[in-house]
Amino acid sequence: MSDPRQYFTFADNGEPLQLDCGRSFGPVTLAYETWGRLNAEKSNVILILHAFSGDSHVASHDETDLEANGPGWWEAMVGPGKGIDTEKYFVLCSNILGSCSGSTGPSSINPDTGKPYGLDFPVVTIRDMVNAQKILLDFLGINSLYAVVGGSVGGMQVLQWCISYPEMVRTAIPLATTMRHSALCIAFNEVARQAIMTDPKWQQGKYPEDDPPELGLAVARMIGHITYLSDEAMHRKFGRRLQERDDLSFRFESDFQVESYLNYQGTKFVRRFDANSLLYITKASDYFDLNKEGDPTINRLAGTATRFLVISFTSDWLYPTYQSRELVQALKRNGCDVSFCEIHADCGHDAFLLPDDRLINLISGFLSGAASNE
Amino acid sequence: MSDPRQYFTFADNGEPLQLDCGRSFGPVTLAYETWGRLNAEKSNVILILHAFSGDSHVASHDETDLEANGPGWWEAMVGPGKGIDTEKYFVLCSNILGSCSGSTGPSSINPDTGKPYGLDFPVVTIRDMVNAQKILLDFLGINSLYAVVGGSVGGMQVLQWCISYPEMVRTAIPLATTMRHSALCIAFNEVARQAIMTDPKWQQGKYPEDDPPELGLAVARMIGHITYLSDEAMHRKFGRRLQERDDLSFRFESDFQVESYLNYQGTKFVRRFDANSLLYITKASDYFDLNKEGDPTINRLAGTATRFLVISFTSDWLYPTYQSRELVQALKRNGCDVSFCEIHADCGHDAFLLPDDRLINLISGFLSGAASNE
Repeated sequence: MSDPRQYFTFADNGEPLQLDCGRSFGPVTLAYETWGRLNAEKSNVILILHAFSGDSHVASHDETDLEANGPGWWEAMVGPGKGIDTEKYFVLCSNILGSCSGSTGPSSINPDTGKPYGLDFPVVTIRDMVNAQKILLDFLGINSLYAVVGGSVGGMQVLQWCISYPEMVRTAIPLATTMRHSALCIAFNEVARQAIMTDPKWQQGKYPEDDPPELGLAVARMIGHITYLSDEAMHRKFGRRLQERDDLSFRFESDFQVESYLNYQGTKFVRRFDANSLLYITKASDYFDLNKEGDPTINRLAGTATRFLVISFTSDWLYPTYQSRELVQALKRNGCDVSFCEIHADCGHDAFLLPDDRLINLISGFLSGAASNE
Repeated sequence: MSDPRQYFTFADNGEPLQLDCGRSFGPVTLAYETWGRLNAEKSNVILILHAFSGDSHVASHDETDLEANGPGWWEAMVGPGKGIDTEKYFVLCSNILGSCSGSTGPSSINPDTGKPYGLDFPVVTIRDMVNAQKILLDFLGINSLYAVVGGSVGGMQVLQWCISYPEMVRTAIPLATTMRHSALCIAFNEVARQAIMTDPKWQQGKYPEDDPPELGLAVARMIGHITYLSDEAMHRKFGRRLQERDDLSFRFESDFQVESYLNYQGTKFVRRFDANSLLYITKASDYFDLNKEGDPTINRLAGTATRFLVISFTSDWLYPTYQSRELVQALKRNGCDVSFCEIHADCGHDAFLLPDDRLINLISGFLSGAASNE
């Protein structure tokens, strides 16, 4: 098995996906992966929602897959005997709508033109992504989720799942996320988008596959990487250490390790991610707001039986703890069953992705507890 | 008077400026402005050091100047009867070496070629900037500074002044600054530089004056602007308010006010600042480190008679309070006379530039006290 993904295509038969922007769209393909076995009652499904640049490869499936496709983005958390135990649970993750790792997005071929959609792809929302996932679950015959789990943009999807399909979700674990994208987050996303859209190679999104706006995309990724770390983590990881030199260059080269690291991350990203997908997914997160004045969507959770575990990290300044507290307060105000934990971690927003026994134990404990307290 | 600046040129007579990079450089012109009157003893001089994109125009000189050149960047602080009272003090500010507002920098004409220096301009340091200012003071016959005052990159110059010319500095007020540029700050600066250097119009720094890499420079400025604000300030100023529209666009336009604000700031900056100067000044601040392991330069302040007032701001995450505390501790360790104040302000790094009675009173009180405690 070299490609561990499965593909499900829908909305290709005259029943297109209705999007928040008002457009009807199809066909849609979702790439997904599964781990573990679905039990007879179909009651052991855990849906994992990935973050901005993630994909369906949450964890490797076996030794061969590990060798071929590398570890997954949550390898430390998901697997046999791990925090999300694939011997107990049937784990599912699909690449989000608008992305570029197997699911339909702006780099997919528009069947009407035979060329990539580019900006003809519709601006999708977090809710559109969730609605597409729901159609995949219908196809798989799954109508109950033991848990939905995800961090960052994945956490937004967790919350949207609870609101759109409350009867399906038994437990929900939103990590390092928010119920409304802040001005600061919108600002960083907009600068990242501008870095891409001002690259002449972007060409209004019509760049050829083999000649993307790689310099703009690299700068956008560098901005992202700074926001995923923290002052403390950067100090610990890099400090002012020089990169393979004994003294300052007095030239415009990478003097410091942190510069070299960012440039490396930017360049590496270009090889695996589509510039237009960055535009679309950042826009989707910017549009995310469950706490609109006048009609807060979050209030639709009143009376839900879903049990929540909200997790934040002390040094996450992109989605700081106070935003998780606001979420917890909104959930409590609506009578929801909610636990909250702030984990002390110096590694910034990235903390939710990094191996951490406290996080692993917290999630596995909550999942077990939810079963026993039936 | 349409141009309030005066110009002093030196190192044009066979005695070039010796730079930290090892090069000898000249000629050098510094543009400067003064306010108030030098007293007979020449003992009432306050040297103000400007931040990254600042200039010599600290405050307007009179109504005509205000109309012609607008308010200065510290209009609220400097003037007759203000915090830095130009009826008592002779205030001086020069545009820094490497900048583009009248002083010699990469956009100046290289007399050897008749073209702008571009990257042939030497990579200068904070110390080089201070050494150039010292030559200006020598020219003006000033050998004692009642105070040196500056925030951010200006604060670095304050500290460098105290170290390089301790016998000249009676009091020093570094605001919102650090004694060593952190990995986080280097990271943001490097992304800003990359945004410029990846703009094809940059052309290795050889762009024509009328066709600069304006898109890259605008992105760099947008990054800067985010770091000068704070999460709280952005929430208060912009929140998720839409920009001249009633609903989301579902297009890649500026939906939110914060996006529109950043794009406006980016575009505006292009009209007044040189892209290469941004490269040089960010590099100078990245190189700034008075606390090198093994031989901390800050220790040379042991025994100095200079009195320090260190000021930080609670929501400044570029030069957070803990970095000012580290500076205060280093000064105390060296037996320096130091006062420290952290001002509660939600507006981020920009706080030091904004009108604030607490800051004005703090500075004017410290300056008066320094006189009375002679």
